[in-house]
Amino acid sequence: MYLLDATSDIPLHLQLYKALKHNITTDLSIGSKLPSIRKISQEYKISKNTVESAYAQLYAEGYIESRPKSGYYVADADFHPIGMITKDETSSKPSPTYRYNFYPVRLSRDLFPLKLYKRLFNRAVDENLDMGTYPDPQGEFALRAEIARYLTELRGVRCDSSQIIVSGAFIDAMGMIADILRPTHPHFAIEHPGYHIARKVFEHHLYDITPIGVDENGLMIDELAESDACVVYITPSHQYPTGSSMPVANRLRLLKWARQNDAYIIEDDYDSELTYRSRPIPSLQGLDDAERVIYIGTFAKALSPALRIGYLVLPRPLMNRYRAFHGTFARVSLMEQKTLTLFMHEGHWERHLRRVRNLNRKKHDLMKQSLIKHLGDAITIMSEGGGLSINIRPASDIDLDLLRHRAEEAGIKLYFAKNHSGGEWDAIRMGFGGFEMEEIERAVEAFAEVFLITHQ
Amino acid sequence: MYLLDATSDIPLHLQLYKALKHNITTDLSIGSKLPSIRKISQEYKISKNTVESAYAQLYAEGYIESRPKSGYYVADADFHPIGMITKDETSSKPSPTYRYNFYPVRLSRDLFPLKLYKRLFNRAVDENLDMGTYPDPQGEFALRAEIARYLTELRGVRCDSSQIIVSGAFIDAMGMIADILRPTHPHFAIEHPGYHIARKVFEHHLYDITPIGVDENGLMIDELAESDACVVYITPSHQYPTGSSMPVANRLRLLKWARQNDAYIIEDDYDSELTYRSRPIPSLQGLDDAERVIYIGTFAKALSPALRIGYLVLPRPLMNRYRAFHGTFARVSLMEQKTLTLFMHEGHWERHLRRVRNLNRKKHDLMKQSLIKHLGDAITIMSEGGGLSINIRPASDIDLDLLRHRAEEAGIKLYFAKNHSGGEWDAIRMGFGGFEMEEIERAVEAFAEVFLITHQ
Repeated sequence: MYLLDATSDIPLHLQLYKALKHNITTDLSIGSKLPSIRKISQEYKISKNTVESAYAQLYAEGYIESRPKSGYYVADADFHPIGMITKDETSSKPSPTYRYNFYPVRLSRDLFPLKLYKRLFNRAVDENLDMGTYPDPQGEFALRAEIARYLTELRGVRCDSSQIIVSGAFIDAMGMIADILRPTHPHFAIEHPGYHIARKVFEHHLYDITPIGVDENGLMIDELAESDACVVYITPSHQYPTGSSMPVANRLRLLKWARQNDAYIIEDDYDSELTYRSRPIPSLQGLDDAERVIYIGTFAKALSPALRIGYLVLPRPLMNRYRAFHGTFARVSLMEQKTLTLFMHEGHWERHLRRVRNLNRKKHDLMKQSLIKHLGDAITIMSEGGGLSINIRPASDIDLDLLRHRAEEAGIKLYFAKNHSGGEWDAIRMGFGGFEMEEIERAVEAFAEVFLITHQ
Repeated sequence: MYLLDATSDIPLHLQLYKALKHNITTDLSIGSKLPSIRKISQEYKISKNTVESAYAQLYAEGYIESRPKSGYYVADADFHPIGMITKDETSSKPSPTYRYNFYPVRLSRDLFPLKLYKRLFNRAVDENLDMGTYPDPQGEFALRAEIARYLTELRGVRCDSSQIIVSGAFIDAMGMIADILRPTHPHFAIEHPGYHIARKVFEHHLYDITPIGVDENGLMIDELAESDACVVYITPSHQYPTGSSMPVANRLRLLKWARQNDAYIIEDDYDSELTYRSRPIPSLQGLDDAERVIYIGTFAKALSPALRIGYLVLPRPLMNRYRAFHGTFARVSLMEQKTLTLFMHEGHWERHLRRVRNLNRKKHDLMKQSLIKHLGDAITIMSEGGGLSINIRPASDIDLDLLRHRAEEAGIKLYFAKNHSGGEWDAIRMGFGGFEMEEIERAVEAFAEVFLITHQ
C-alpha cells in the first residue's frame, strides 16, 4: 500500500513514481509483476493517466519492462541503465529480444559523441539564448553558413547560406519540396525500385507518379525522357536500394534533360558520407549551372538518427516560393541548432565523419569477408562499399519468407529491400552498423547456418 | 593581415574566426567596418563560404552586426552577450531597431527556465541515451504519458498516451492531419477570419476550402451545416483573431453536426494556457464521445516558440491511417523529448504555467489600463483577457496604413490582425508579452501620441 497525499505540493504521479521506485529497488524481486494501471487507479481513486505517467517514467528509466498483453514487470538489472538493481539469476527472463539484429540503418550506440555534445549544448545555452521568440524560419544563419561550407568543401555542392533550409527529418524536407513544386510541376518520377517514403510524400500531395527503371548506372534516363515527368527524385551517389552510382556522363545528360524541359531534379544525398572504398562521389548538384537541382542531405546517417535534422539546398529561383508559406516558421529547436553549429564550426563534424567512416569501413569489410567465408557461392553480393549494410541475394531460388521465419526462430532479425522500395527487386539487407566488431562474424555464422538449411 | 596556415589541422574558417575575433576585441573600435567577404576571399585565396562561416560565428556570438546592403561592422557592447567589448559612446550607432515593438507572439526572454532546462538536459543525456537508432515514431512513451496526463488533468481532454503524437511545430501537425483525412474527407472549412497558416496547409493538400463566418460565439454553426465541409478547423477557446470563445451549447451542436455527417473537428487549443480572468475553458475534445475531434496543442505559446514542439491527440479510429505513413519516423530530437519529459514529470511545467500566467496577467492588465488612460474613447478594445496581445480598433475611421507608417517613423512596430487571418476583419494587435513591466506604459504612451496625431 502506497501513501499518496492529494493535498501535497508534490503531484500525485510523482508521489506514486517515487513510492513504486522505492518498492522496486528495496522489496520486489526482478520479474515480479506490478499491479495493473487500472487496479492502482481504482484502489487509490486516481486517474489512469496519473498511474500511466508514473509507470512511463519507471519504464523510461529502465526500472520496469512492459510485456505485451501481460503488463509491467520489474526489469532485469542488465536492462537497467542506472544499475541500482542487483541481478537475480533465478528470476524470469525478460521478453525475448533478437540474438542478432541486422537492422540496416543503425549506428552503434557509442559512436555518438554524447559527452562532447552535452558540453557544446551547455556552451550554446550559456550564450544567453533567447527562447522567448521565434527563430529564423530558414534556420540559424551561423548553422546555414556551416552547412554551406561543409557542402562546398566536401560534397562539391555549389551554394551559399542563403539557399540552405534547415529542416526536420526527410518527410519534412520532401513535404516542403512537394508543396513548392506542386502548382507548376505536378508530375513526379522516381527510381523504381526506389525509396518508398519519397514516393509516398508526393502521392499525398496528389502528384501524378511515374516509376522509372534503374540499371547498373542508376536511373534510366531514356525512360525518364519519354515520360511526362517534370520532377524526378534520385539517389545518384548510392542508389536506394540497388547501391549503383550514376556515372558523370549520365549526370550531365540528366541535367540537360532538366534544362530542356524546365524540370527539377531532387538529389537525395542521404548517405554519401559513408563511402568506404574511394572518396565520396561529388554531388550532382555541383555539375548544375542552371538551377535545376534541389539537394537534400541529413545528419541522420552519419551523426544520429535520433537528432531529426536535415537540410535542403534550393535553387535561388525557388526561394520566393519557399518563403511564401514554409518560410514562416523554423522547424528545429534553437538549442539543437546552436549546438550543432558549434559542433560543425569547431571541426568536430569532420573529425566525427572520419571516425564513423573508419569504424564502419572495418565493420563493412569484416562482414563482407564473413559472408564470403560462410556462404561463398551460395549468395551474390548485390551492393557493397558504402552505407550501413551489404545487400545480398541467394545465388539460387530460395523462399525468402521461409528464410525470414526460420531466422526469427533462431533469434535472427532480417530485413528485405522490397519492403521499402515498392517494387519486385529484392535483396537481404545485411546491416553491420549496429554490431560491435567482435559480433559480426558470429552473427554471419548464425545467419549462414539458417540460410544453408533453408537453401537445401 | 591575418596569418592563415592551410597545412594546419585547424580548419581555415576557424583560424580566420579566431584572428578576426582577436582583432575585434583588441584593435578595432565599435562600429568599424570589416572587410567584405569577397575581399577577404580574394586576398587569401579561400572560398567565400569559408569567410562566411567565420563571419557567421562572430555574428552568432554578437561580435559583429550586419547592416543590409552595407556589410559587417564591429558590434556595440550592448549587443554583445559575452561583454568583452567596452562601450564606446563616440562610435557610430548600430542599425536602427524599434524603440517599442508590439510583436504579439513573444514571451520575455527571462521567462524561459534556461538553467533548469540545461540541468534537465544534462540529466537526460546522462541516462545513457541511445542516439544510434531511430526513436519511437509517435514520440517517446514517457513524454506521451506526461502530455496525456497534463491534457486530462488541466485541459479536460479525454485521451491516453496511445493517442498522442509528438509533432514538430504547427505546420507539421496540420500537415499530418491533412494527409490522414484527404482520401476520405477532402472538403475543409475554416473560421473566417481565421488562422491563415491553417488554411494554407489544407490548400497545399488540394482540399476544397470553405470559409465560415465568425460571431461573438465563434464559428457560425448554421453556416457550416449548410456547407459541404466534412472537416472543420476551429479555435474554440480563444478564436483567432477575434478572441471570442464558443459557448458549451454551440460546442455540443458542433459535435452533433460532426457525428451526423461523419465529419472531423480540428480543435486548435493554441494558447488556452494563457487565460487571465478565469480558469481556462476545458477543451471541446472533452465533450466528444464519438471520436470526432482531433486536438492540437503546442509548447510554443506558454513555454517557448524556439523549442518547435507540439502534439496531436488523434481519435483512435484514425491511428491506423496515421501509422501507414507518418507513423514511420519521429519528428523531434530524442534529447529534447527526454528533457521535456523530465520537465513535465517533475512538476516544472505546471509551476512554469503558473508563473507565465501570473506575469502575463500583470502585463495584460497594465497594458489595458494604459490603453484606457492614454486613448480612452478613441479606441475600442476588441478582445482581451488571454494570449499575449490586446486587440484594439480605432473608434472612428482612421487610415491604418498611415498609422503603421507614422509609427515606424517614431520607432514603433505595429502588427495587424488582417495580415494573418485572410479576411477584411482587422485590429491592431497590441502585444505585451515581450515588454518588461516598466516599459508597458511608456510604450503605450508613445503609441498613443502617434495614434492621436493620425486620428485627427
